[in-house]
Amino acid sequence: MASRWPECVQIREVGPRDGLQNEPGFVPTAVKLDWIGRLADAGLSYIEVTSFVSPKWIPPLADAEEVAAGLRRREGVTYAALVPNMRGLERALRSGIDEAAVFMSASETHNRRNINKSIGETLPVLREVTAAAKAAGKTVRGYLSTVFGCPYEGAVDTQQVVRLTEALLEMGVREVSLGDTIGIGHPRQVEAVLEELLGRVPPDRLALHFHDTNGLALANTVVALQMGIRTFDASCGGLGGCPYAPGAAGNVATGDLIRMLHAMGVRTGVDEAGLSEASAYILQALARTGGDPGAAAGDCLTGGDRDVCS
Amino acid sequence: MASRWPECVQIREVGPRDGLQNEPGFVPTAVKLDWIGRLADAGLSYIEVTSFVSPKWIPPLADAEEVAAGLRRREGVTYAALVPNMRGLERALRSGIDEAAVFMSASETHNRRNINKSIGETLPVLREVTAAAKAAGKTVRGYLSTVFGCPYEGAVDTQQVVRLTEALLEMGVREVSLGDTIGIGHPRQVEAVLEELLGRVPPDRLALHFHDTNGLALANTVVALQMGIRTFDASCGGLGGCPYAPGAAGNVATGDLIRMLHAMGVRTGVDEAGLSEASAYILQALARTGGDPGAAAGDCLTGGDRDVCS
Repeated sequence: MASRWPECVQIREVGPRDGLQNEPGFVPTAVKLDWIGRLADAGLSYIEVTSFVSPKWIPPLADAEEVAAGLRRREGVTYAALVPNMRGLERALRSGIDEAAVFMSASETHNRRNINKSIGETLPVLREVTAAAKAAGKTVRGYLSTVFGCPYEGAVDTQQVVRLTEALLEMGVREVSLGDTIGIGHPRQVEAVLEELLGRVPPDRLALHFHDTNGLALANTVVALQMGIRTFDASCGGLGGCPYAPGAAGNVATGDLIRMLHAMGVRTGVDEAGLSEASAYILQALARTGGDPGAAAGDCLTGGDRDVCS
Repeated sequence: MASRWPECVQIREVGPRDGLQNEPGFVPTAVKLDWIGRLADAGLSYIEVTSFVSPKWIPPLADAEEVAAGLRRREGVTYAALVPNMRGLERALRSGIDEAAVFMSASETHNRRNINKSIGETLPVLREVTAAAKAAGKTVRGYLSTVFGCPYEGAVDTQQVVRLTEALLEMGVREVSLGDTIGIGHPRQVEAVLEELLGRVPPDRLALHFHDTNGLALANTVVALQMGIRTFDASCGGLGGCPYAPGAAGNVATGDLIRMLHAMGVRTGVDEAGLSEASAYILQALARTGGDPGAAAGDCLTGGDRDVCS
């Protein structure tokens, strides 16, 4: 049953956005920019650098304009940002970001808690944002959260995941990132969900966004690789926990992911030592801001114009 | 490519032997017995309870006779012990253990460092021990260490692994446990090694013994499951580190393994809550014995009649 392992894999580094958004302290803009520069220097070719949600909802990313404007751009690197709506997109476009990332959930309750709209109300907003971004010459990425389970509803209907993935692609999204928002997915489920999806969607239009809450991110990655997925989100230092699992691991750490891939002979273009240094750099900076990430992460649970759990 | 996942998996609990042997403090015999009782009560049907190597080499397990004699036996549970040679087997037989586990390495240097003999000198010893154990009505398990890499030699020849696995089975060993002694194996390698092995050996004669040093134990387990392996070693609490990676994770934790399997709908017969309590129990006991496991684990590197890195 020799699986065909890929020669190379694309990493989407989401640490500066998904990693920092739950942190209690404010990381100074200059430190963020230095970190992003180190990530690019380490070979990451895609970095989600900030979020253009309302600063009142995500104070740690209140400096989105300054970050986008201050980027020390490296050739060949895509600098992306999260945008919740037209107002966010307008800010992002003015800031000269390369790609906009829109987001929604596969489960009704999480979608409503996270962005204060039903799924039915969300789709037209994302369609409008995507069309406008493309009209402005930008590409668009779509996040679909709670694909493998919802903290409010439990199991999530795979057919709903398929429908929403197709809806995002039809509106012009380049790639859909399937989020295991609470880190509850397991290898057999990843296989089953991807089997359904890949009957309708080519693998190069999908990315997997695993959380390591239950220690299964790498096991899930292996199955996704076997199913033909070649794009994975990861967060430098494993930043980005989930409020439903205080103290648990957050997003899969970029370093863990690339070390496994490199051991398997799969290229990522990322330098392990450089990535390690970038990770140490941001962890030291966060230690200086103090606070308990687990406590502050609870912010994610309330409010309207929110982007926390992709 | 729908993998066929199994309905159930056998767990070989090695914590009381492989987990404790590297600990710096001596866990009192009564505590060991209480822990082993809790492991059996949690549903583990196979427990390697101690090692009949010379007490001077493995002081933490110097009470092998007392442990074997004091077992509160639970019906349906196999109580096994490591035996290095005929002298060890004689002690084990007098103690009434159910199964003897013999051991060797797939790499010459590690074999010599661990048991002070060449591989060629080891095989006749294991053959004699296995025959004597079977003559006494016992079953025998075989450990083959450094299957996925050797701390001294680096890469290990897969053909050597196949040859030694076959040699162990031919001498009458019931099952060969393939050890990723330094936790360096990765999913693609597990697949490749098993592909070679399964051309010669049926899957029910093999077990996988993963270490989580690099965080890949569960990912490796997933691939082994896909290849048809149904028996896995694990250590309650993840006890049993490797001296070559101080502070790193040790044997794959039984709790991590069963949680993944249960999430995937694979039965193990082990109760998660009961296992958690057994894990908390021994971790508290170890905290009382003090010391730095990482430092003491260095014992593994020297000496003759040794059994440390299965």
